[in-house]
Amino acid sequence: MVQYLQKLNTTFGALADPTRRGILKRLGRSDAGITELAQAFEITLTGMKKHVGVLEAAGLVTTEKIGRVRRCRLGPRRLDDESAWIADYQRMLEGRLNRLGEFLERTREKQ
Amino acid sequence: MVQYLQKLNTTFGALADPTRRGILKRLGRSDAGITELAQAFEITLTGMKKHVGVLEAAGLVTTEKIGRVRRCRLGPRRLDDESAWIADYQRMLEGRLNRLGEFLERTREKQ
Repeated sequence: MVQYLQKLNTTFGALADPTRRGILKRLGRSDAGITELAQAFEITLTGMKKHVGVLEAAGLVTTEKIGRVRRCRLGPRRLDDESAWIADYQRMLEGRLNRLGEFLERTREKQ
Repeated sequence: MVQYLQKLNTTFGALADPTRRGILKRLGRSDAGITELAQAFEITLTGMKKHVGVLEAAGLVTTEKIGRVRRCRLGPRRLDDESAWIADYQRMLEGRLNRLGEFLERTREKQ
């Protein structure tokens, strides 16, 4: 349970940055080296390493050193827990709105 | 587009904290005052005000001052964009895995 909570902290935190979301989209097209990513996003190599590190810690990117180049690949996490969490929120919100609607209905009937 | 990106930053950032996710779950049952929430989560009133502020900025909670009490309510944001973003990621990941599978298949055939 604690592990599950920490996973959500790490992944939602990783997704809260536009550059990191951009990197994931870029890796959705093909694997890429860190230098290549740094150039594509016009940030320093150190900055890109940090972003990739956050994504790797969240399980959203896997890196592998091939010769002198560190290759980045999408995955392995599927974000199923995150997707389920959001679906739960949406159900809760709908439930609250329905109950509010019923309350307003009853109030109107009493008038 | 920029506004859409900022929304995702704010909501994913808001969801990256276990207390904030807990507050949303609590408000899924019923509306609550800030003092009530602070007591339930055993944190200071100032700490709770900050968390609620982050959730309010992300559109996940609405607050309303009724007399001396500030009531918190779930919504109005439905997290549809966030849900769509995650679904996109899942499709990209599946695409990458399929292409990797095809590549391995071809490599095996050549041997």
